[in-house]
Amino acid sequence: MGRPRTPLLDRERITTTALELVDEKGEFSVPQIARRLGVQTGSLYHHVDGRDGIVELLRERVSAGIDIATLDLRPWDEALRAWARSYRAAFAAHPRTIPLLMTNPVRAPRVLDQYERAVSLLLDAGFPPPDVMPVIVALENVVLGSALDLAAPEAMWELADDTATPRLAEALDAAGERRADRAFELALECFLSHARRRLAEHRSAG
Amino acid sequence: MGRPRTPLLDRERITTTALELVDEKGEFSVPQIARRLGVQTGSLYHHVDGRDGIVELLRERVSAGIDIATLDLRPWDEALRAWARSYRAAFAAHPRTIPLLMTNPVRAPRVLDQYERAVSLLLDAGFPPPDVMPVIVALENVVLGSALDLAAPEAMWELADDTATPRLAEALDAAGERRADRAFELALECFLSHARRRLAEHRSAG
Repeated sequence: MGRPRTPLLDRERITTTALELVDEKGEFSVPQIARRLGVQTGSLYHHVDGRDGIVELLRERVSAGIDIATLDLRPWDEALRAWARSYRAAFAAHPRTIPLLMTNPVRAPRVLDQYERAVSLLLDAGFPPPDVMPVIVALENVVLGSALDLAAPEAMWELADDTATPRLAEALDAAGERRADRAFELALECFLSHARRRLAEHRSAG
Repeated sequence: MGRPRTPLLDRERITTTALELVDEKGEFSVPQIARRLGVQTGSLYHHVDGRDGIVELLRERVSAGIDIATLDLRPWDEALRAWARSYRAAFAAHPRTIPLLMTNPVRAPRVLDQYERAVSLLLDAGFPPPDVMPVIVALENVVLGSALDLAAPEAMWELADDTATPRLAEALDAAGERRADRAFELALECFLSHARRRLAEHRSAG
């Protein structure tokens, strides 16, 4: 018998299986991954640092879809806009990872490096250090809330009877298509224009 | 034998059990609810309109935590600010319902009525009808992204080594406490100040 072409277990396959489970069920467990891979649960622990380690592999996998070259763009607000759009698209492909990844601490080195670049962008632009993390987290709230919204049905409000909620019916008629994208772009524009003003105030005060 | 004090099955108990399952596992199924209640799956269908009906009962239950009297405040931006804070608190108590509720169409009459009030607030304030739903959805993205963030650990970034990401370490030190609340208030303020400017532009153009 020859050596199998792909090893039965490796971190890539464990990550892929965990991602499939989260995409399907919103959750994963180490025994479920072992079952899908046809191996003993214990043997998984030779490859990954427990459940938390798998969460970090998922974080690296999904975050790999973000174009970090966007953070090299200038001026800073163009960089943030492009980063936010790419970040949203990466997570919209796997919306059920969002609650899992948002509620576990970030340890993955490649993801920490992405934060390092985002922080550097804002510090170099002149944001005061205490504002930098709130600005990044606020932008992430917009991005991830909106990535979840992309997974929603286009017809999100099902009115049994227009007469019960006539103004909602009117607003829905007037809103047209691509609700999720338009709301995201609006929220992003709100965010960037406010951040620009705060930065200008800080500069003129400094 | 006397009549049991609480009926074995009713919509309230089904909703409570579904919410417990989602809080624990991020998901529910009709057979899981039946198992917890010690009844046959089929008998649940006498009380609720299938899985989708239970999702709507969950939506009503979680949304009941939102103080809708906030939508009667004036001016409109004070109303939206108070509504957003209350909306975030209600969903932060059950963060794992967020992906479920965001990806199923809204049918619950009491929740549709809440949208009717929010739409009325913005139309009465003078927002052009095509802007109303994008404004509401953008605000919801901020609210729900931020409600998920409230479920995150306070120490969200675990730096193995400050020297690998020195500027992230600096920004985290400078940020201080209550990251999630400060980011939410920042995002909310961004949103409201931009919306005020758009409304003023629309009024001066009209």
